[in-house]
Amino acid sequence: MSSKFDKASLRLHKKNNGKIGTLVKVPLKTRNDLSVAYTPGVAAVSTFVAKDNRHAYTHTMKGTTIAVVSDGTAVLGLGNIGPYGALPVMEGKCALLASFTGINAVPLCINVHTSDAIVDFVSAIVPTFGAIILEDIAAPQCFEIEERLQKLSIPVIHDDQHAIAIAILAGLINGLKLVKKNHTDVRVVIIGAGASGIATARLLNAFGFLNIVLVDSKGIIHKKRKDLNVIKKKMLKITNPRNIMGYHADALIDADIVIGLSEPNSITSMMVSSMAKNPIVFALANPDPEINPMMAKKSGAYIVATGRSDYPNQINNAIVFPGLIKSALDLALTSFVQEHFIAAAIAIAKTVSHPNPENIIPSLFDKKLIPNIIRAVKNVSQKI
Amino acid sequence: MSSKFDKASLRLHKKNNGKIGTLVKVPLKTRNDLSVAYTPGVAAVSTFVAKDNRHAYTHTMKGTTIAVVSDGTAVLGLGNIGPYGALPVMEGKCALLASFTGINAVPLCINVHTSDAIVDFVSAIVPTFGAIILEDIAAPQCFEIEERLQKLSIPVIHDDQHAIAIAILAGLINGLKLVKKNHTDVRVVIIGAGASGIATARLLNAFGFLNIVLVDSKGIIHKKRKDLNVIKKKMLKITNPRNIMGYHADALIDADIVIGLSEPNSITSMMVSSMAKNPIVFALANPDPEINPMMAKKSGAYIVATGRSDYPNQINNAIVFPGLIKSALDLALTSFVQEHFIAAAIAIAKTVSHPNPENIIPSLFDKKLIPNIIRAVKNVSQKI
Repeated sequence: MSSKFDKASLRLHKKNNGKIGTLVKVPLKTRNDLSVAYTPGVAAVSTFVAKDNRHAYTHTMKGTTIAVVSDGTAVLGLGNIGPYGALPVMEGKCALLASFTGINAVPLCINVHTSDAIVDFVSAIVPTFGAIILEDIAAPQCFEIEERLQKLSIPVIHDDQHAIAIAILAGLINGLKLVKKNHTDVRVVIIGAGASGIATARLLNAFGFLNIVLVDSKGIIHKKRKDLNVIKKKMLKITNPRNIMGYHADALIDADIVIGLSEPNSITSMMVSSMAKNPIVFALANPDPEINPMMAKKSGAYIVATGRSDYPNQINNAIVFPGLIKSALDLALTSFVQEHFIAAAIAIAKTVSHPNPENIIPSLFDKKLIPNIIRAVKNVSQKI
Repeated sequence: MSSKFDKASLRLHKKNNGKIGTLVKVPLKTRNDLSVAYTPGVAAVSTFVAKDNRHAYTHTMKGTTIAVVSDGTAVLGLGNIGPYGALPVMEGKCALLASFTGINAVPLCINVHTSDAIVDFVSAIVPTFGAIILEDIAAPQCFEIEERLQKLSIPVIHDDQHAIAIAILAGLINGLKLVKKNHTDVRVVIIGAGASGIATARLLNAFGFLNIVLVDSKGIIHKKRKDLNVIKKKMLKITNPRNIMGYHADALIDADIVIGLSEPNSITSMMVSSMAKNPIVFALANPDPEINPMMAKKSGAYIVATGRSDYPNQINNAIVFPGLIKSALDLALTSFVQEHFIAAAIAIAKTVSHPNPENIIPSLFDKKLIPNIIRAVKNVSQKI
């Protein structure tokens, strides 16, 4: 759970009292400034916006601001650490968004945890924000919450479902090119059936992957399991076509791709060695991957990706969500559909002009990344 | 409802897409920056804060950030214009706070309006913020809401109750000096028994005013009224000692002070002329006062104050809340009590070194104002 950045990170956070603050965009130096920005002038703006709420997009922060909402039940690799512990992560998310897209972002870490309470909370803040990112909310609630919030007048995405699934699909598109395999032929094993595991299986299926096996903490998800919740049962319709059984070690034998969305050190050298030729290993547990990338390579992995910025091929939702959210605000979308996500994944993959095993996914710092995503989402929006 | 600032205000808000945004306080330029500010380094900070939530005050935004929450049911002089219309006002409040104190502030305009729903909402966001300002929530709910929220681990103040009451008391302290009257002897009439009227009556009573008459839209609040809600009934214990009856015109006869917290143009020249010698007129309806200040002066008012920044003597909660909130964060207060409010009012009054009828209240731009409030709140906190 520790990294060489821990001390520097603690120091940085204490020095700055967190990472984000309030930027005032208007002058407030004179009495006249106050009269224009605040009372009495502001009454005209309030009246204007109250008359037609859509004016909030042009005359208030709503048109450029999103909220990042978390209850802290599934934070990074840290698990259920609560809303206080989640705050540094959400501030980081907001800082990234603001830095990379110019969007304004507000973290809202909340100490309510039922689906009803979280749905009520998010519904209540719709007037203030142009979109909502749900973040680090534990499965299976996150699915119900995200589904119930699709009826709001602004897009709501669950980062740990949609954004990570898009990043994974983007990485696989380039990875499969390099190993010269077709997505309809390969065996994919997803270890972890939480928010991101389920969403990844769904998106890969929507893209056309035919052989996906989902594994949870009790083993492979198959038809004879009696302990599956509603969502895992549903997943049987689009996963495990040969109905294989056993543990994740069994699933990995002859698999082409493994996507770890589970726990540190849960993939061994032996398991990687048992995979098909030129296997692709995405070990995405944060902050410590399922297998050390060097060890995975030594055991035969052709391509290795992790969630970390200090190894090659960082598969992180940070690649996805700035462009996705910016496009939502720019296009004033009211919701996202699977077609937007697939278009975004293809755009991300194409951003890497010459993929190689150490470079299948673009850097967050690639200036083409966000414009590419926005263009792709815009194109597909016009077709829907 | 209109002012000469309307057009400039609409232009300013459109040009800037509102007034506030996100300030990123840490570098995010390199992969190393990301590793320190975000993953993997941030996991150490999250763990540290999760272990002891008090660390949120030093290592996250919580220690320097407050939320301004409104449901938009009682906005300025505009009334129930809803949360979208309220947003420009709340952004203004947050911009003022940020500019004048360096505190970070987030407007949260919500589309829920029952006491239960607002209490739930505010309780949910406690982990993220160091204090909450409730704003422009209609009476009588605002009283119940504010009371129920006093048990939270952070201070919650209702700006339209506490801050405006403090500003009024500060203005009266200097005003009474100028007219050489004692607060225990004067007759005070408060027109408007909404959030600010009730809170002002309570604070003046706590300070020692003995003769306060409260007037609502149906007339003077007296013992024979059958239509009073619970809160107005309670107010009879501390107001209207002679149990006078009638309308506000009746109450003003021989009154020393009138505090208008009601509707534009509800005080006439005749009414001011009927008051006692050297009357004090606070016409605080926003954006248009109960009586034009010039007209009030002509009718015999010795001191006139309004809520507007374009006339002398602006009695606005903007004078109060920056210092009050800054002291809450600096002292890590868990709640405010009446003694804090009285200390703040005295400090505000003293900030005007040479009061005169055109200058009974300090400017928001007075550099001594905020430090004076903080010092006073600190002193009284040590005594409680």
